[in-house]
Amino acid sequence: MRLELEEARRRFAAAPVARLATVTPDGRPHIVPIVFALEGNRIYSIVDTKPKASTSLARLRNIEANPRVSLLVDAYSDDWEWLWWVRADGRATVVADGPDRERAITLLLPKYPQYLDDHLEFGSATIVDVEHWVGWTAGR
Amino acid sequence: MRLELEEARRRFAAAPVARLATVTPDGRPHIVPIVFALEGNRIYSIVDTKPKASTSLARLRNIEANPRVSLLVDAYSDDWEWLWWVRADGRATVVADGPDRERAITLLLPKYPQYLDDHLEFGSATIVDVEHWVGWTAGR
Repeated sequence: MRLELEEARRRFAAAPVARLATVTPDGRPHIVPIVFALEGNRIYSIVDTKPKASTSLARLRNIEANPRVSLLVDAYSDDWEWLWWVRADGRATVVADGPDRERAITLLLPKYPQYLDDHLEFGSATIVDVEHWVGWTAGR
Repeated sequence: MRLELEEARRRFAAAPVARLATVTPDGRPHIVPIVFALEGNRIYSIVDTKPKASTSLARLRNIEANPRVSLLVDAYSDDWEWLWWVRADGRATVVADGPDRERAITLLLPKYPQYLDDHLEFGSATIVDVEHWVGWTAGR
């Protein structure tokens, strides 16, 4: 059963973690979990620089070569009537500085106080402009 | 911090849900949640035929055009010291019948009694031969 657009977006925004899929320059899929903030049709995330993870860099390299991304939020339950997921397909941009990166920080800090507690430093932001939302629920 | 191979595989196998990323024929990433069973370096999943979901078909079409897949299991916690994830990269094959599909059913039924409870019918199986495991943990 399809989820209404507003309900899909609401569930996506409330999730603490999403999975970001990109495509490598040689055409393979790549997938990592990310923390994020949603505002309208924009998904903001940011790389923290401690520790420097090669996987974060792979993700940014992929986006620079191919901006198409797909993000997924899903809920699992042993009662399969409660399964649901929301997918956001769009285009990503990586920004090392400027107002979009500032906006990312502004939105992420209230959602994730861990950024402050863990004394993480911010690297580049990834901004995804969602072009297509799709949400599915098993029924409830 | 990298997870040891055996620990990564153990955590992956125990998870009830993974996310499967494929690449569409026109080079976009596509991502769906799947239930699965792991045996050795093989990940088995199967499409159920009720209800017929266009997303399941998209996934199978993608694999037929490009067998490269990436699967992710991840754990979220408000305490970021408990974050971890495991990714499996490999090649997928879709089988409509035969021994590999039988094996998929044999492995999936004990892990997911829901298949029987919900009277789901089995469609094609997807068999992923994992070529590369990578696991990460924040520290615990």
